[in-house]
Amino acid sequence: MNGIWRIPDLIDLKSRGSDLSMEQVAYVVKCITEGNMEDSQLGALLMAIKLKGMSAKETIALTRAMRDSGSVLSWPSEWVVGDKHSTGGVGDKVSLPLAPALAACGLKVPMISGRGLGHTGGTLDKLESIPGFRVSLSESEVKECLETAGCCIIGQTKSIVPADQIMYATRDITATVDSQELIVGSIISKKAAENLNALVLDVKYGSGATIKPIEDAENMAKSLVKVSKSIGLNTTALLTRMDTPIGKTIGNALEIMESLDCLRNEGPADLHELVIGLGGELLANAALATSDATGREAIAKSLKDGSARKQFSIMMQRQGVSKSISEALCGNKADYSSLPKAKFITSIKAQREGFVLDMNALELAEVSLALGAGRSKANDPVNYAVGVKILKMIGDKVLIDETWAELHHDAILPESLKKKAEGAVTIDTDAPKVPPRITKRIT
Amino acid sequence: MNGIWRIPDLIDLKSRGSDLSMEQVAYVVKCITEGNMEDSQLGALLMAIKLKGMSAKETIALTRAMRDSGSVLSWPSEWVVGDKHSTGGVGDKVSLPLAPALAACGLKVPMISGRGLGHTGGTLDKLESIPGFRVSLSESEVKECLETAGCCIIGQTKSIVPADQIMYATRDITATVDSQELIVGSIISKKAAENLNALVLDVKYGSGATIKPIEDAENMAKSLVKVSKSIGLNTTALLTRMDTPIGKTIGNALEIMESLDCLRNEGPADLHELVIGLGGELLANAALATSDATGREAIAKSLKDGSARKQFSIMMQRQGVSKSISEALCGNKADYSSLPKAKFITSIKAQREGFVLDMNALELAEVSLALGAGRSKANDPVNYAVGVKILKMIGDKVLIDETWAELHHDAILPESLKKKAEGAVTIDTDAPKVPPRITKRIT
Repeated sequence: MNGIWRIPDLIDLKSRGSDLSMEQVAYVVKCITEGNMEDSQLGALLMAIKLKGMSAKETIALTRAMRDSGSVLSWPSEWVVGDKHSTGGVGDKVSLPLAPALAACGLKVPMISGRGLGHTGGTLDKLESIPGFRVSLSESEVKECLETAGCCIIGQTKSIVPADQIMYATRDITATVDSQELIVGSIISKKAAENLNALVLDVKYGSGATIKPIEDAENMAKSLVKVSKSIGLNTTALLTRMDTPIGKTIGNALEIMESLDCLRNEGPADLHELVIGLGGELLANAALATSDATGREAIAKSLKDGSARKQFSIMMQRQGVSKSISEALCGNKADYSSLPKAKFITSIKAQREGFVLDMNALELAEVSLALGAGRSKANDPVNYAVGVKILKMIGDKVLIDETWAELHHDAILPESLKKKAEGAVTIDTDAPKVPPRITKRIT
Repeated sequence: MNGIWRIPDLIDLKSRGSDLSMEQVAYVVKCITEGNMEDSQLGALLMAIKLKGMSAKETIALTRAMRDSGSVLSWPSEWVVGDKHSTGGVGDKVSLPLAPALAACGLKVPMISGRGLGHTGGTLDKLESIPGFRVSLSESEVKECLETAGCCIIGQTKSIVPADQIMYATRDITATVDSQELIVGSIISKKAAENLNALVLDVKYGSGATIKPIEDAENMAKSLVKVSKSIGLNTTALLTRMDTPIGKTIGNALEIMESLDCLRNEGPADLHELVIGLGGELLANAALATSDATGREAIAKSLKDGSARKQFSIMMQRQGVSKSISEALCGNKADYSSLPKAKFITSIKAQREGFVLDMNALELAEVSLALGAGRSKANDPVNYAVGVKILKMIGDKVLIDETWAELHHDAILPESLKKKAEGAVTIDTDAPKVPPRITKRIT
């Protein structure tokens, strides 16, 4: 196949809006992976794809070729393997209770997660706030973890979809991140390389999401589901509302505590809704439930009866956390003394009396980032202890001067940051109707 | 200015179709020149420019910034300096008689030319078929040559418009050569760096030209003239027909002979038309003639009275050719014995009787290239002796089996190449009307 086409000719075709053939797409990805394409050519090609788009057929070919650019995981044939992917939101800790809940229901969940960047937190950073937690496991450790805990949550490895690693690094500096086809290829190729039977996608929309209009999110969800199904993963997607933060915490250790609360069948209702909704979908997609409704029942039961929490405790131990810490974190009564705590807590008070009408996820995420909970650029250090704790949810009544949120911080709090937090809430005279997180199902 | 903008943000702006400010364009060109932009970013930016275009204001800013990326030549203040640029055609040897004709009329012509690539010949290759000719002169040699000969024809130097050299190398491999704005920037910045008072552009259209539809060529000519004027060069353009070869020769030494014929006021009428037409424009633009018409008269006179030929002889000697060879080539009677000749001449005969209706420039150029006269890729060696000599022009009568062209070759001629040459002519029963080369003037 090598040398059949000249790369400039393929770039030219794409720049004129023509479709590349399956073989041409595969050739391009091979050249990228093997370093047989000049950086300038990759930059030009990605820009041509961003501006001219790709057909469904091309996107499927791209995704398949990217998956095959590295190793594809393999599992015992009797395992039913599944995973969830989210397009990323503020306070999104859904993966943490969801993975062990799914494991408790019989699914194997080899979850590959990412780190936080900008206003989006990262599941790996959250887990690393637990003393001893290792996100980097060998292949045999992954298998052992899945055998015993039923789930693991690990970082991207170099051997999985190397084409995506090269492409993403280039997209990041060439203003070509926001191409639907490149996003679909990137997401689905990595999930396909996990060799899954089933997948559920959490596609977020709204002011705190990457994709703001619901129509665009629906478009993206449809493309993700179509491509994912086409390469053999039973996939559905949920469109979920991402305007206000998910749950009541933003920040690494704070979100771990809330996730453990959820596994104890406590904590905020919207987090439960998402865990149960996404889990139900995935169990149905994996044929471990006869429908998404029975799937949801199974997930809810695993939270109630403590079986999900038990799987999480085993997973933590397999991923380097001591038995005593794991058991304390997952005990029947919450004991979070092993988790890092911030030195200072500053109360954020309501400026008027009324009902919480809105809470700006993006602004609160920026506050949390400024406190040190996240990264402005890759490789920035992360402070696990700091973040935002919300005391009043949408629809809750507040009195004037009542604390509706706390900032957990380790350094002196700049007045501007406090002001920014104060401005992130909207209080109205009437109690609003709170819509569910899950807005629409895409099959 | 450094670091005011992030390159990805500027690429993003352009990819969304927004205009960059003059300062942003200048910053981008500075980053390109100083190597402060990743190759992938340059590739992406060039593709965004190709697909989204640039406003006139942006193109002017680009051209000015490119000019200023390297050294700008300087001349004695009393000199009137001018040059011609052609978008490239088959058998286009216009520069060779034009430069000395202009010099004879009082213009200083520091012509920077290029080498052949693909079906287009290069003025430098043609000149190098003259024994001893050097296309690489030092700055002081250039000045001396202009003082005595009034003209020189030299190669691109590394110090002039380095931004273009980097950009062109990248455009060449990223399918971004065919962007009007990038072409305008590349052409005009180099002419502006010659520090000209006046410029004339030969913008070709038709089957043998890079830009085929006359409307597109007119568009390009208008943009070239507008940008060139905006940065201080008195500029006009001529749209000229490029379907049949210019003159009767294709190939390096063959074209030198024809150019010398022209300087002896002999040779084909269309070459005279172009030399006189373009020369007249440029003398008027340089205010060395009161109008293009009087400019044309002055050029015609310089060909007739031998003054142009004398300047060419001096130029050759200043550029390394011996006195005896120069004087023999430029004598009153043609003596071309010093020029390389091909070992074999194969006659191409008419397949029917009639009048020459059409001659496909592109096909004949491909034949000449296959004989070794040109380059398929940069750095290929060039055979100066070989090429195509046309005996019958459009409108000439031919008998069946009469020779209408000769192939000059040094190796055994493949039958397929002979067939290709035979097929390049169209002979009809009626004598066609031959339109002039110059179709339209753009001011």
